[in-house]
Amino acid sequence: MFFSSTLVENAVNEFAKMPGIGKKTALRLVLHLIKQSPEEVNLFSETIAKMRAGIKFCSRCNNISDKEVCNICSNTSRKQEIICVVENIRDVIAIESTQQYNGLYHVLGGIISPLDGVGPEQLAIESLINRIEKEKPEELIFALNPTIQGDTTIYYIQKKLKDINIKITTIARGIAFGGELEYADELTLARSLQNRLPVDSYMNTR
Amino acid sequence: MFFSSTLVENAVNEFAKMPGIGKKTALRLVLHLIKQSPEEVNLFSETIAKMRAGIKFCSRCNNISDKEVCNICSNTSRKQEIICVVENIRDVIAIESTQQYNGLYHVLGGIISPLDGVGPEQLAIESLINRIEKEKPEELIFALNPTIQGDTTIYYIQKKLKDINIKITTIARGIAFGGELEYADELTLARSLQNRLPVDSYMNTR
Repeated sequence: MFFSSTLVENAVNEFAKMPGIGKKTALRLVLHLIKQSPEEVNLFSETIAKMRAGIKFCSRCNNISDKEVCNICSNTSRKQEIICVVENIRDVIAIESTQQYNGLYHVLGGIISPLDGVGPEQLAIESLINRIEKEKPEELIFALNPTIQGDTTIYYIQKKLKDINIKITTIARGIAFGGELEYADELTLARSLQNRLPVDSYMNTR
Repeated sequence: MFFSSTLVENAVNEFAKMPGIGKKTALRLVLHLIKQSPEEVNLFSETIAKMRAGIKFCSRCNNISDKEVCNICSNTSRKQEIICVVENIRDVIAIESTQQYNGLYHVLGGIISPLDGVGPEQLAIESLINRIEKEKPEELIFALNPTIQGDTTIYYIQKKLKDINIKITTIARGIAFGGELEYADELTLARSLQNRLPVDSYMNTR
């Protein structure tokens, strides 16, 4: 691709580094920004930079947060004795959008996937175990994608918790096998939270 | 969509203002940026802001440029006596990518489209006429999309130039009717430049 402007070329290259954005899409975005006022583009770029500089991970649940402890964890009207284990932040957003869950979360930051080189030590599993030992919640809900990797992660954590007295459940298999949690519609996701199953019965059906 | 972080919410909203980017895509981009180092994200945001602050429109051809006059216009090895009229900057990039054209450009900034409220006065048509009177080029090549609006624009400019001695051509109809110039493959686009036709014969075939 030829550019008569180095400024535009650099901006296109920056956008094209992002997932799912090729050079043509990047160019469209840059030309869109050129049409906006410099003030609007400054707002865009400052918002992004400020976000990255200010973003924290909640010290309790590993969710993204503006503060040391996230809004969800510091909300005392939420049930402190239920922890929902999710793969990533998008899953928190998806579950919160159902408005059917009123407990806390624990964001693993991924799932166990040896083929991708992701082992338990790369994930927030140790912090989950420590948190459970300290906070002694009544229930742990696994809301992981129904894949081999998701099941492996559940199995691994379940084994780690075998000496701890805690109810362990998973969201119901309302989500299509091989599907992506974050793309489920809100009703399906809400139902699968309501109809959650003991993890043993879930494992037996695989 | 629920966010546990205002910083992330603001960043998502900024991305979602862009064409073709919905909230879910915006979130993906923001989460991608969170995974990058603050330095990388600063580079991203500074490149964008610098681009918008520094970008100019070439005083000669209306193309985007880092300087008062763009790289193409100031390149003396290019044929100064041929001007290719295009709708927008993406078309300049598409034609330059064929490496088959060695003349100059004139970027109209759109095409005449009364239904969209775009008349000749919103476009760089007067500057084109003035430029032709001043520079006296030998040939004017129209490289506009083969649509009603494109034809109307050609017709309007052609009429304005009726007293001026200049060869007026259009790129050949190699491009599918109703197609988009910027998505044409380089070979088709290169051929249609080589086989350009006198504008009168083109108009008679419509």
